[in-house]
Amino acid sequence: VPDRPSAVALLGGGVIGGGWAARFLLNGVDVRLYDPKRDAVRAVAGVLENARRAYERLTLAPLPPEGTLTACASVAEAVRGVELVQESAPEDVALKQELLAAADGAAPPEAVLCSSTSGLRPTELQAALARPERLLVGHPFNPVYLLPLVEVCGGERTSAEALERAEAAYRAVGMHVLRVRNEIDGFVADRLLEALWREALWLVRDDVATAAEVDDAIRFGAGLRFAFMGTFLTYRIAGGEAGMRHFLRQFGPALEWPWTKLTDVPELDRELVEKLVAQSDEQAAGRTIAELERERDDALVGILQALRAAGAGAGETLLRWERALLERAPRTDGRRSVPASWIDYNGHVHESRYLEAFADATDALLGSLGLDPAVGSYFTVETHLSHLLPLHAGDVYEVETQVLAADEKRLHLFHVLLRDGRPEPAATAEQMLLHVDSASGRVAAVDGEVRARVERLRDEHAARPRPEGAGRVGLR
Amino acid sequence: VPDRPSAVALLGGGVIGGGWAARFLLNGVDVRLYDPKRDAVRAVAGVLENARRAYERLTLAPLPPEGTLTACASVAEAVRGVELVQESAPEDVALKQELLAAADGAAPPEAVLCSSTSGLRPTELQAALARPERLLVGHPFNPVYLLPLVEVCGGERTSAEALERAEAAYRAVGMHVLRVRNEIDGFVADRLLEALWREALWLVRDDVATAAEVDDAIRFGAGLRFAFMGTFLTYRIAGGEAGMRHFLRQFGPALEWPWTKLTDVPELDRELVEKLVAQSDEQAAGRTIAELERERDDALVGILQALRAAGAGAGETLLRWERALLERAPRTDGRRSVPASWIDYNGHVHESRYLEAFADATDALLGSLGLDPAVGSYFTVETHLSHLLPLHAGDVYEVETQVLAADEKRLHLFHVLLRDGRPEPAATAEQMLLHVDSASGRVAAVDGEVRARVERLRDEHAARPRPEGAGRVGLR
Repeated sequence: VPDRPSAVALLGGGVIGGGWAARFLLNGVDVRLYDPKRDAVRAVAGVLENARRAYERLTLAPLPPEGTLTACASVAEAVRGVELVQESAPEDVALKQELLAAADGAAPPEAVLCSSTSGLRPTELQAALARPERLLVGHPFNPVYLLPLVEVCGGERTSAEALERAEAAYRAVGMHVLRVRNEIDGFVADRLLEALWREALWLVRDDVATAAEVDDAIRFGAGLRFAFMGTFLTYRIAGGEAGMRHFLRQFGPALEWPWTKLTDVPELDRELVEKLVAQSDEQAAGRTIAELERERDDALVGILQALRAAGAGAGETLLRWERALLERAPRTDGRRSVPASWIDYNGHVHESRYLEAFADATDALLGSLGLDPAVGSYFTVETHLSHLLPLHAGDVYEVETQVLAADEKRLHLFHVLLRDGRPEPAATAEQMLLHVDSASGRVAAVDGEVRARVERLRDEHAARPRPEGAGRVGLR
Repeated sequence: VPDRPSAVALLGGGVIGGGWAARFLLNGVDVRLYDPKRDAVRAVAGVLENARRAYERLTLAPLPPEGTLTACASVAEAVRGVELVQESAPEDVALKQELLAAADGAAPPEAVLCSSTSGLRPTELQAALARPERLLVGHPFNPVYLLPLVEVCGGERTSAEALERAEAAYRAVGMHVLRVRNEIDGFVADRLLEALWREALWLVRDDVATAAEVDDAIRFGAGLRFAFMGTFLTYRIAGGEAGMRHFLRQFGPALEWPWTKLTDVPELDRELVEKLVAQSDEQAAGRTIAELERERDDALVGILQALRAAGAGAGETLLRWERALLERAPRTDGRRSVPASWIDYNGHVHESRYLEAFADATDALLGSLGLDPAVGSYFTVETHLSHLLPLHAGDVYEVETQVLAADEKRLHLFHVLLRDGRPEPAATAEQMLLHVDSASGRVAAVDGEVRARVERLRDEHAARPRPEGAGRVGLR
């Protein structure tokens, strides 16, 4: 990953310009913004707020100190001293040409000029510039601060050096550069997206489906694959071990069926088939279908789990199904299975997960006491863990919890983790917890109904034998 | 979620039939398979193996006991006693009609007949059946055991009851049903995917991009959104608070530009604009643009993290960027920050994460000893944890580790977790570890260079003062 630029100018601060601002600022790059709209800075601040929130969740890596955002009154002021100019004005050729000409006249000679246009050709945009060789297209996707793709396309007069300098700057702020080698309207991504959009409009116009149904037809199906695998590799897998040639032979004829309203269809002649087969082989880079399937499934599983956590789309379907499985399962009285995610790189359950299992049991116990977190909570101050038998993914286990002692502030617990079918404990944990008042944040007595329940539980458990090995925690 | 069927018949066991088999079997449904191909059962077993592996990672919910797979010599034998027949033969009308007629003749009268066809109309498939009312299309997506979408479409003579029974069966095995209300070739999803595919073929044929570049143009950009958000909702967000009408006004003209090779384009007249605006409002269901942006970003962050874990596509870009950030960060000597994911529902760092931090420190120490996991590893048998000061998300912390004792099998450690800028410990952990021989899985002496390093470290650390509170772990 190359070094990041120290400062960039952004011409236009809408959804795309704001996204660029957020990506550059959070990567420690100073941003000089020119946008004639009165509320542009406020709008950019809103996008930046979204981006800060997203990055906080996205990464544990140490982000550099945020860059400085400076609102500028003119293009000339904005481009002063910057290494890269990114124009994100509306898709109006004359307007873009005017902004880029102003930038060309005032920017340092070594600065590159990039347009965010999603469809206009760089040759057209550079026509009137004094230094046309430094103009290129760098087309991003919304939200710019999260989606890594940027299509880079030079015009007839763009220099190789300008392309390389822009690509280095984009990579430095975490982007994936797709060099568009042939200058066409719409580049690559928007030609594909536009085809989809046109067909989607027909489906709604003809009352075949609503907007929501069209979206669902993608996001619950092929869209889940598109996050990591495009059409060509997907179809290679669909062809199975017989390969891309087999797939084309089998599904090629469908091309001639009048399925879509978009009817200009390339002829699948021998030349095109050979080209597709060769490029598909190159793309697979020696991976077998079985390997590709495994990569696909691993990515899909991860995505479905991420969407379950976000409560979105297919993640909700997964959650509903899991709830039904749980309801249908025989009563387990707190029995759980060890999830695969608990396994560390050694193939064992990570030691911290034992404590997670015990903390879950503590939570269940506190929940049964009717503790109101708005009033007070118990915090663990000491834990003594013993590991006795290994756990494996899929093992069913159960935690039994005994209250050893309790007074107005302290709760002394002993947990035993039992692996299904084994009478001896797999692990034990002895814990001392203190009650903390939520308002003051200080240790305080628990009272009322909760106190009565704690004491009732303590007295009930007093009849049980004292567990072996207890007595290792206590307030010193 | 409705009750699952007890048995289904699958006609055809290719990629799609195998995927159906896996989904039904893993949901506890018995599968009776008819496929004239000699190696069909072996192929289905391969898909099932993939699916078992995926489900193990996908969910913690208790799966029912797997259904039984029975290979049948004829359609009549396969459909005996089943509640649902799923035909997944090649896209050949005559072949499908023949298989469905045979099924219709032999299946229990209450069974529904479903075709996996991706494009043929159910009216055509039911033409020659004695009980046409029970025939419908249930079109799934590959891999069927992971992608939830199934398009359900009835023909002219399909009964409402048959549609409902099939939909209930699909939902029972975790699928998302999209009812296609208007019977058209290709239904909804494949019309969209076919438009994309046609345009992709043009791009390759015209040498604008290679197969890999076309795929990258999707998977590093819009494809990441498609996993949870379709085109219409995406464009609503792109329109910002000004809404869908604004978006259509701004980007509508591009429809007339000759971007794609697929040129039949609906006219964006007032009627279509009004319909799109109304349906977009309905789809948003009252959510503001800010809310939609937040939902989008949460899902994108989760997906990027899932892809980072899977090492796929945009996840690799993220990983490269994070590595660069780490390299560029000032030397921290083991300092880390508390990630947001460590925070529990109370807003505190979950107690098990303290142990994760200590385990990381143990790993770092063991790594420095040159331990070869193929030969042997240390396992924690006892831990004594003390929580002294709270940690918050973003806090920078550091763990200092002291070797208290070591012999040929045991390693006795004391960790102190320090919060940046505070001299007193936030938490401590005393741990006893045992060396386990990897071949035998038994406790065994560590020897050679590792042993020498362990003892050198122990002797160096012996000069340090004994930590306060040490002496709480030991082998009993």
